[in-house]
Amino acid sequence: MTENNQGWVRTISLPEPALQNNTADADRLVSALKSQFNVPHVEVDLFLLRQLPELIRKWEYRVCCTVFRDHQKWVLAGVTDPQDTVPVMGLAVDLGTSRVVIRLLDLLSGRILGEASFDNPQISIGPDILTRIHYAEQAQGLPELNRLIINGINTHLIALCKAANTEPENIQLIAAAGNTAMTHLFLGLTPYWLIREPYIPVINSPGLVEAEKLGIKANPLARVLVFPNVGSYFGGDLIAGILYSGLHKKEDTALLVDVGTNAEVVLGNKNWIMGCAGAAGPALEGGVTRMGMMAGPGVIDKIRIDPETGRLETHTINEKPPVGICGSGLIDLAAQLFVSGMIDIRGKLNVAEAGSHLKEKDGLTVFVVVPAEASATGDDLFISQADLDSLVRSKAAMYTILETITGTVGVSLRDLSSFYVAGTFGSFIDPESAIAIGMMPDLPRDRYIPLGNSSLEGATMALTTSRCVHEIFEIRDQITYLELNVNQEFMNRFSAARFFPHTDPTLFPSVKVCRTI
Amino acid sequence: MTENNQGWVRTISLPEPALQNNTADADRLVSALKSQFNVPHVEVDLFLLRQLPELIRKWEYRVCCTVFRDHQKWVLAGVTDPQDTVPVMGLAVDLGTSRVVIRLLDLLSGRILGEASFDNPQISIGPDILTRIHYAEQAQGLPELNRLIINGINTHLIALCKAANTEPENIQLIAAAGNTAMTHLFLGLTPYWLIREPYIPVINSPGLVEAEKLGIKANPLARVLVFPNVGSYFGGDLIAGILYSGLHKKEDTALLVDVGTNAEVVLGNKNWIMGCAGAAGPALEGGVTRMGMMAGPGVIDKIRIDPETGRLETHTINEKPPVGICGSGLIDLAAQLFVSGMIDIRGKLNVAEAGSHLKEKDGLTVFVVVPAEASATGDDLFISQADLDSLVRSKAAMYTILETITGTVGVSLRDLSSFYVAGTFGSFIDPESAIAIGMMPDLPRDRYIPLGNSSLEGATMALTTSRCVHEIFEIRDQITYLELNVNQEFMNRFSAARFFPHTDPTLFPSVKVCRTI
Repeated sequence: MTENNQGWVRTISLPEPALQNNTADADRLVSALKSQFNVPHVEVDLFLLRQLPELIRKWEYRVCCTVFRDHQKWVLAGVTDPQDTVPVMGLAVDLGTSRVVIRLLDLLSGRILGEASFDNPQISIGPDILTRIHYAEQAQGLPELNRLIINGINTHLIALCKAANTEPENIQLIAAAGNTAMTHLFLGLTPYWLIREPYIPVINSPGLVEAEKLGIKANPLARVLVFPNVGSYFGGDLIAGILYSGLHKKEDTALLVDVGTNAEVVLGNKNWIMGCAGAAGPALEGGVTRMGMMAGPGVIDKIRIDPETGRLETHTINEKPPVGICGSGLIDLAAQLFVSGMIDIRGKLNVAEAGSHLKEKDGLTVFVVVPAEASATGDDLFISQADLDSLVRSKAAMYTILETITGTVGVSLRDLSSFYVAGTFGSFIDPESAIAIGMMPDLPRDRYIPLGNSSLEGATMALTTSRCVHEIFEIRDQITYLELNVNQEFMNRFSAARFFPHTDPTLFPSVKVCRTI
Repeated sequence: MTENNQGWVRTISLPEPALQNNTADADRLVSALKSQFNVPHVEVDLFLLRQLPELIRKWEYRVCCTVFRDHQKWVLAGVTDPQDTVPVMGLAVDLGTSRVVIRLLDLLSGRILGEASFDNPQISIGPDILTRIHYAEQAQGLPELNRLIINGINTHLIALCKAANTEPENIQLIAAAGNTAMTHLFLGLTPYWLIREPYIPVINSPGLVEAEKLGIKANPLARVLVFPNVGSYFGGDLIAGILYSGLHKKEDTALLVDVGTNAEVVLGNKNWIMGCAGAAGPALEGGVTRMGMMAGPGVIDKIRIDPETGRLETHTINEKPPVGICGSGLIDLAAQLFVSGMIDIRGKLNVAEAGSHLKEKDGLTVFVVVPAEASATGDDLFISQADLDSLVRSKAAMYTILETITGTVGVSLRDLSSFYVAGTFGSFIDPESAIAIGMMPDLPRDRYIPLGNSSLEGATMALTTSRCVHEIFEIRDQITYLELNVNQEFMNRFSAARFFPHTDPTLFPSVKVCRTI
C-alpha cells in the first residue's frame, strides 16, 4: 500500500477495448488507476459510473482522474477531459474556533487560486467552544451550529470561485483540519460527550465524506477528508501541524506546541510521537484582561519598554490607534515589565519602578499601557495585578506541561532540535518574550520555528501531495497520548514555574533583568 | 480476511467508555465488529454516525448491528435495539428479463416473510432485452427503463411488507442477481456497449450501493449487493446459480446450464470453473412457434403420445383449457414425436405415422397438438415443420456448446457427476425428453438436478450466510470465460447434433424409438 509523492490528479491513458481485452469500462479504469497510484483498489461511485462509458469514449480513452484516499480506501472523486483548460480544484479548510480560513487550489499545479478568512459564524452562538457544545444540547442546536459553519464555508467558497473566474462544481477534493469539537460540529456529530468524563468523541477517523452529504457546495461527488483526531482534546489541527512541521520524519527529537486556552504539546521524531493537552487558561490568548482581544486592526501586538526612559513603545496591527491588546502583545508586555524591573519575579507590580505608569481604577492599582488620550477607545488601556497573576498561572501551566511531557520520555528541553509553534496566534509570539517570562524554554532562538496557520498548510499538503494523506493516518496511529495527571510532582513543577522566568534561573541563562530590584 | 458461516446481523456488546478506555464511540463499535466478523475494517456512514452516540447509550452498550460486504469492503448497514422485536429484514431479488421475483427475509432467523413474482415492467418497452437496450439509446430511455424496474420492485416490496405487517424501513440488506443487461438497467448504467463489439459492460463488480441512491424504498442506508458479472454475456444470475448449486465446492466436475435464447454453460469443480455462452435461438423457450408462450395458466407444459394409439395427452398449467405451449412442452412434444416415430431423425414430419394429426394451414402441412374444439382460443394449436427445424437447430446448438466446453478441458459429458439446470424455465424441462431429442447428454437421470429459481436462491444465500458473499467474488474471479469460436470443428459438431438424438447413437444408448421408421 504505497503511493508516490505526487498529486491526486493524473491523466490516465486506457487501453482501448478489444475482443482480446473486453473487460468492463470501470474495471479497465480502476486497473489503470491501481497501477498508476500503486494502490490495492479504487472505488467508483454509481453516479460517476453512469457517465463513464460516454465520457471515456468522447475523450478517446484518455481520462483526467482525481483520486483521493483516507485511512483505508481510495476513491475516484471525479473525471475530467484532459484537453480541458478548466482547473481541477481543491479546497483546504482551517476549521478554527474563532477564525475559519479557506484556500482554493489548482490541484494539478498546486497553485493557490484564492484565500478567504472569516470569523467562525458559530461565534453568534458563543465565542468559545464550550458555549457552543452546550448550545448543541438544545433542540435543533446541533443542526444550527452545523448549518452555520457549512453556510459560512459555502458563502466564501462561492465568492472565491467567482473571483477566480471558476465554478464551485470544479472543486473535487476538500481537506479540513480543526480541533475535535469543531470537527464534530462540521460533520454534524454531537459534541456532547467530548466534555463529559470520560471524554468520548463520536469518531476519531471519519474518513472521506461526500461534499453533497455535508451540504458543501462543491462538486456533489467531491470528497471531504476530515483530519482525524486522537481524542476529545487532541484534534486534527494538531495532526495537520505535525504533518506541516515534518516532526514525524525528523531524526532529532522536536517539540510542537499549540498555545491557547488549551495548550497542546507534541514531542517526537520519526520513531515515536507523544502528545498531551492541558488547560493553560485564557491568559496567554489575551483573554483575561479587560483590554484583551483577538488580533485585528488597532490591536497591540508588540510592546517595548525603553530600559533608559521606562517609556512604552507599542505597535498596533495595521498601525491603527490602539483599541486593545492581543496575546502576543500581553506576553511582550509581561516580558518587558519583568526585564525592566517594573514587576518582580512573582509578577507583582513594583511601584518604585513602574510608578509613573500606575493609576488607581475602581480602588485597584493598574498599569496603564495606553493612556485614554492616545487610545482609540477614549479610555485607558490597562492591565491589573489580577491580570498579571492570571498570566503567571497560565505561563506556569504551559511550562509545566512542557517539562512533564519531556520528563516522561527523559528528554531535556534543552536538547530539542526544533521548537515548533503552531497556529496563527502562536506565530505572533516573540520567542524572546516567551522565554523572558519562562513560558517557553531558553533555547537558541533559531530553534523556534513559527508554523503560521499550520492547519491550513497541513490541509493544503493533503490536497497536493498524495503521500501526505497516508502520513496523516500514520501520524495519528503513532501518537501516544499522555494523560496529564495533576499529581504532587506536577504541582511541584507548577509552583516552581510560577516565577519570572523560574525559581531555577539556570534554566534560563539568557534572560537578563535590566534593573535589579 | 476470513469470516465465519453466520448471518449479517449480530448483537454486539461494547465495553463501556472509561478514562482508561476513552476511544471514540464509532471506533469502539468498529473494533468490536472487526473482531466479531473477523474482518479488517467496517465502514460507518455519516448518517449512522450522527445517531450512534445516543443510540448506544440508550441501548446500554448493546447494539444489534447489520453488516454487509462486497468484494473489497465491509460496511455497517444499520443498527437496531437488541431488545426490539421488529425483524431486521433483507430483500432477495431475481432480476429476470421476463419475470422478477422478490423475497422478504428475516435476516436473523433466515425465515421467508413473503415472496412476490411479477412481470418485469420493462416488458411494456419490449419483451426481449435487445429491444430494451435499443430503447435505452433514446433520450430518457435509460432513466425510464431504470424507473420501471425500480418502481416495480418498490410496489411489490411495499405490498410484501404490508402483508408481513412490517415497514420497508426495516429492510437493511438487498441482494439482486440478474443477467448483465438487467443488472445495468437496474443500476441505471447504459447497456449500449454490451451488444456492440467488443461487448463491454460498464462495470463487472459494482459492489455495494445505498438503496437510497437507487431509489429503492427500503431503509435509506440499506446496502444493495448486485451480483457481479463476468462479461456482457455471462451475468450475475449465473454466479448466483453456481453459488446455489455448490458446484464451486465439489470435488467432482459438474456442469450447470441455463437454457434460453442464450445458453450459458458452466463447467467446473472446487479447483477451476469455466464458463461460456452461446446463442441457442429462441426455440428452446417456445419462442418460435405461433403457439409458443411463457409458462402461465392454460399453457401446455407436458405432453405424452400413447405409443399404442398415437393419441396426444397434454397437461396444462393449473389444468386450464389449453392456450399455447411453453418451452418444456415443446421439448416434450418433439421427444414424443420422435420416440413415437411421427418425426424422423432429421426432425421431419413422418406422414405415415403422424397422418391423423396433420392438417393443411396456409398451404403448409402442420401438426395439430390441440384441435380448435378443445383449445381455449377456439383455434387449432399446432406446430409447423419450420418450428421443428428451428427446434432442431436450437437443440443442436445447445448440445454443441456442451460438447465444446467439456472437450476444451478434456472432460467427457458422461463423466459429469451432476448436471444442474438453472432457472425457473429449466426446472420444467423433463430430462427424459431433453435427452430423447439429444439436447442434453444421456446421463443417469438422477444426475440431473433442476435448481429452480437459482438467482433468487443465490441472492437469499448472500443475505443469510455471510461467508457466501465472499464466495460470490471468489467464484467470479475463478471463472475462465471461454470464447466460443464458431470454427470448422464447432460446425462439424453442430452438424452431427442436428439429428434426433444425434448421428452417433452410441452417445444416447438409453434413447429408444418405439416404432422404427
